[in-house]
Amino acid sequence: MSYFDAASSAPLHPVARQALLASLDEGWADPSRLYREGRRARMLLDAAREAAAEAVGCRVDELRFTPSGTHAVHSGIAGALAGRRRVGRHLIVSAVEHSSVLHSAELHEKEGGSVTQVTVDRGGRVVPSGYADALRPDTALACLQSANHEVGTEQPVAEVAEVCRAAGVPLLVDAAQSLAWGPVEGPWSLLAGSAHKWGGPAGVGLLVVRKGVRFAAQGPVDERGYGFENLPAIVAAAASLRAVRAEAAQEAVRLRELTERIRARVPELVADVEVVGDPERRLPGIVTFSCLYVDGETLLHELDREGFSVSSGSSCTSSTLTPSHVLKAMGVLSEGNVRVSLPAGTAAEDVERFLAVLPGVVNGVREKLGAPTPTAVVRADELLVDALGKRCPIPVIELAKVIGDVPVGGLVRVLSDDEAARLDIPAWCEMREQEYVGEEPADKGTAYLVRRTS
Amino acid sequence: MSYFDAASSAPLHPVARQALLASLDEGWADPSRLYREGRRARMLLDAAREAAAEAVGCRVDELRFTPSGTHAVHSGIAGALAGRRRVGRHLIVSAVEHSSVLHSAELHEKEGGSVTQVTVDRGGRVVPSGYADALRPDTALACLQSANHEVGTEQPVAEVAEVCRAAGVPLLVDAAQSLAWGPVEGPWSLLAGSAHKWGGPAGVGLLVVRKGVRFAAQGPVDERGYGFENLPAIVAAAASLRAVRAEAAQEAVRLRELTERIRARVPELVADVEVVGDPERRLPGIVTFSCLYVDGETLLHELDREGFSVSSGSSCTSSTLTPSHVLKAMGVLSEGNVRVSLPAGTAAEDVERFLAVLPGVVNGVREKLGAPTPTAVVRADELLVDALGKRCPIPVIELAKVIGDVPVGGLVRVLSDDEAARLDIPAWCEMREQEYVGEEPADKGTAYLVRRTS
Repeated sequence: MSYFDAASSAPLHPVARQALLASLDEGWADPSRLYREGRRARMLLDAAREAAAEAVGCRVDELRFTPSGTHAVHSGIAGALAGRRRVGRHLIVSAVEHSSVLHSAELHEKEGGSVTQVTVDRGGRVVPSGYADALRPDTALACLQSANHEVGTEQPVAEVAEVCRAAGVPLLVDAAQSLAWGPVEGPWSLLAGSAHKWGGPAGVGLLVVRKGVRFAAQGPVDERGYGFENLPAIVAAAASLRAVRAEAAQEAVRLRELTERIRARVPELVADVEVVGDPERRLPGIVTFSCLYVDGETLLHELDREGFSVSSGSSCTSSTLTPSHVLKAMGVLSEGNVRVSLPAGTAAEDVERFLAVLPGVVNGVREKLGAPTPTAVVRADELLVDALGKRCPIPVIELAKVIGDVPVGGLVRVLSDDEAARLDIPAWCEMREQEYVGEEPADKGTAYLVRRTS
Repeated sequence: MSYFDAASSAPLHPVARQALLASLDEGWADPSRLYREGRRARMLLDAAREAAAEAVGCRVDELRFTPSGTHAVHSGIAGALAGRRRVGRHLIVSAVEHSSVLHSAELHEKEGGSVTQVTVDRGGRVVPSGYADALRPDTALACLQSANHEVGTEQPVAEVAEVCRAAGVPLLVDAAQSLAWGPVEGPWSLLAGSAHKWGGPAGVGLLVVRKGVRFAAQGPVDERGYGFENLPAIVAAAASLRAVRAEAAQEAVRLRELTERIRARVPELVADVEVVGDPERRLPGIVTFSCLYVDGETLLHELDREGFSVSSGSSCTSSTLTPSHVLKAMGVLSEGNVRVSLPAGTAAEDVERFLAVLPGVVNGVREKLGAPTPTAVVRADELLVDALGKRCPIPVIELAKVIGDVPVGGLVRVLSDDEAARLDIPAWCEMREQEYVGEEPADKGTAYLVRRTS
């Protein structure tokens, strides 16, 4: 088995396991109590906060542990917005943030606030001027991830933080994906992280609020912060952050070589593939690509059968029926999407085996779905493809099958009621250098118009 | 060392430890993923929910795990209040609820809702008619603990739940203290619990929302409920709940005998002691008493030095400077308060050793503070005790020293600026059968008037 989904959750680091075991015996008592078990728990908690603060690059009293990364993001955004309520209720986020940030933004809008989404380039990266343009006198808070969780693209956090600082607006950084690799640079104001992304246990997040940042914690008063401290897990989280940081520089080089190899080899081995995400400014362990004429769920199942655990931003995957908002914002293909995120210590052989297995798996899925092979027959000026009731990637497959049947300049009209078609048909056109004309409402679903240009 | 503070946090049950270790290896992946590590995690999560639901006595789909008991209470109250917003914004709580419930009530009031606190008797127990009287047409929710966390008194939950059901009002039960001993009876609507109270790990609470209860989760949307599932801890929590339940009937009898012994012996061994809480309808492992002329913090320190870890609802203890709201609501002495809460498996010898050590410890503290020994000297009709700037228990000690100096019918006026005096002087009067006349504002602090009656 090769587990290539570290960006979802990293396996527990051996140091985390060790620390967890030790503090199960020493750290189960209430750290606010005066007796010895309580004092011992307090000492462990204090040491964990010191270690985590050092790794993050903040003061100890600026850092608090939360029950999860999601919780850190939700409470961080809510507290920062409330703290600057007098300034205004405008929130800036990038279009490719983690869902926890976007859900906070949705709630803020529902409650009467306003939200600006900063767009990204085709590599998934924001430009700092996007934030500069979005800033308003009533902007209470801006949010930006340190690196993207689906495609690995690193964001220009330091530059955006400077832009925000110049405007007097705090920047909250969701550092969940990058904290294992190093501290976040630049004058950010708030920062959120999640231990199980760096090899710590689940149940621990962290929220940093820099001194001087206006912050009003929301929800009922809680003297302890967020309920009874999850102490053994907190100790394990801090210990493993320290441990992964000690190995980070060396491991980053090694993983970067492995993902670079995947980036280079996949398009050579598999036809009709698009590798997505910034090729240079990216996390060491993540590489993402999309395969035309393949549906994500089947692909994951087949790869799982071959012993590879990967993730997908396609529609048709377990938890969601809409394609990844990240791929959508980047304007890239979401069809047959695969995210490979290598945990620390991944062996080069496992990556080679993945590359050996992938072409057969993709071709197998394509065959099953009846994906096109280039043959042309009759020619009409306009063809209608009725893909109503058919789920991705069938509409694109049908389109690809008939595009050769119209003459250059001719039109194919694809009828589809699958939301993913809105993203995937234009993306296919771009990959295939056909002209995407646009969409029209139809009696049922939507008609997508494609002109054959070559 | 004898750890007698199970009501704060129980030591990890051996079964919890075992389950935690096993699921660290098997349950670290994302249970919403399609690959085998994810499916394995999902199976563990489903099994844990089934086990917990069975122990609670609810349907699996009515139960969700939360990051803590506090979180379960906060989110349960917020969701239930929001779900019945159309009915009204009136909330009923008992005066002796856990702070997590009272903090939710405070927030609700701050946001424009109204709150009724149902009083308790001197044993800490509500009467069901108190809830019946408090119900209004605009009552959205009522809350009642299954048993009190400071004095162990069991509440008439089933009766109160019936009263609420008859009125069509949901009842939320904070079952944190009793879930180890058995399910909560009666037609309650919501229930909150906390794993580390039953020997599970920290970082896991549970919230049950019965089918048909209107509930609108607050905060940003979160597909997972409360962030990434804290799976190993959840598995351990469910396993230990099962394990403690299997031992509950037998252990309850044993612990009840031990606490009964403390209840009976402490007043025989130590002068001027009040054992508080309902003598019959109480949890097996908790017994609480208050010692006149003793300050809580010093007492805890001295007991800790003798090897006993106990808790106190007195003022002057680590985390708070005001006396316990529970003791206050009961109208009993908070001075020198000690809560003994025995974890499962406590040896009878440890309890005997505690009883052997306690008198010397209390007398030692009393001597240091100069507590009164019965001697009478001069007699005036009225005496003034200036205890300004002196912290509890000094004002009561000074009062006790001079009460014999006024004739029967004479008055002692105690000047104090310590908030605890407001509770402790009337409580002392009741214990000593002196007449508490009332309080008067003074130039500095408050004057408390006591008439000597015997």
